[in-house]
Amino acid sequence: VPNREAVLEVLDAGVLAHVAFVVDHRAVVAPMIYGRAGDDLYLHASVASRLGRALRRDRAPRHAEVNVTIVDGLVLARSAFNHSMNYRSATIEGPAGLVADPAEMLEALRIISDHLMPGRWRHMRGPNEKEMVMTAVIRIPIERGTVRARSGPPIDEPEDLEWPVWAGVVPVRLGSGEPIPAPGAVSESGYPRRLGGELGR
Amino acid sequence: VPNREAVLEVLDAGVLAHVAFVVDHRAVVAPMIYGRAGDDLYLHASVASRLGRALRRDRAPRHAEVNVTIVDGLVLARSAFNHSMNYRSATIEGPAGLVADPAEMLEALRIISDHLMPGRWRHMRGPNEKEMVMTAVIRIPIERGTVRARSGPPIDEPEDLEWPVWAGVVPVRLGSGEPIPAPGAVSESGYPRRLGGELGR
Repeated sequence: VPNREAVLEVLDAGVLAHVAFVVDHRAVVAPMIYGRAGDDLYLHASVASRLGRALRRDRAPRHAEVNVTIVDGLVLARSAFNHSMNYRSATIEGPAGLVADPAEMLEALRIISDHLMPGRWRHMRGPNEKEMVMTAVIRIPIERGTVRARSGPPIDEPEDLEWPVWAGVVPVRLGSGEPIPAPGAVSESGYPRRLGGELGR
Repeated sequence: VPNREAVLEVLDAGVLAHVAFVVDHRAVVAPMIYGRAGDDLYLHASVASRLGRALRRDRAPRHAEVNVTIVDGLVLARSAFNHSMNYRSATIEGPAGLVADPAEMLEALRIISDHLMPGRWRHMRGPNEKEMVMTAVIRIPIERGTVRARSGPPIDEPEDLEWPVWAGVVPVRLGSGEPIPAPGAVSESGYPRRLGGELGR
């Protein structure tokens, strides 16, 4: 990937991936959580999902394209045409295959967990054999990727600058609120303190 | 659509759509802003985008699948397997076609604008002919769609309830911050006051 660092930066900052692949000559798309280890992207899916089912049927990788987009702001210009968004968006494509090796799968689950909830993995009850069978982890090598991004104020045509409308940027951000304990939650181990306000940065 | 109301509710609450379609036998996916009028979904694209180019080449609609997902929270269970997300996700599929009629296209642009920035459209300088030519609006009928959603606390196995880890929900939300005026922005018309904290609800 020529712009490898830029691709990885967006992947590491995002929360949700949208994964597209072909089923019966049609494109389908599904949101998935993910994590990254080096140049491998790991997607979390159910074995019953469309991609999980297709990969189990094929017994071979299937081409997929993955997009991760972070919205940073709405860009309000004087003209409709120059309205825009501030965002960071990474797209990668490649062969998506099921992770079959239990050790790699377990490590991938830890990586996905740590991506969303840093440091929590070691506090949870880990997956047992039955649960592993119901889970699908999909690996895509990060070999072909592109990044698109925009930041900064609106760019207006010079002749529009006097148009009587407010212009500027509305910052947007995926943030997390005060954690809501489940009934009976007493332990402080694995409390999600590091999530506060950090999501999607 | 059997669950039409549920599909429309998610579409109306979301901010970004992920649009998947086939190009050269492979699935591609791109994030787009959108708006809805009745049972039509309008996507905003550039004529230079992959979908814009494909549709201009075809001169006919092309099958697409669109997903809009709103993340509402991280669900932290005692076991790794029972971790989840609270979310609302709508997927529709159908023939995606370029809007050719200038009047419908202008109305669709207003609808997309109002979806993201309620009430602002009438304050902006509207698109001129040259700008309209550089814009692509894509229409997909909302005929086939599904909704998936989860809400509420984690559901743990009874035997895991004593596991020494905090459990509960971390609410997540796409929120907007204090607007940042562009240099020279003086008018208060179209000030984005209605966006504050409302995005993504």
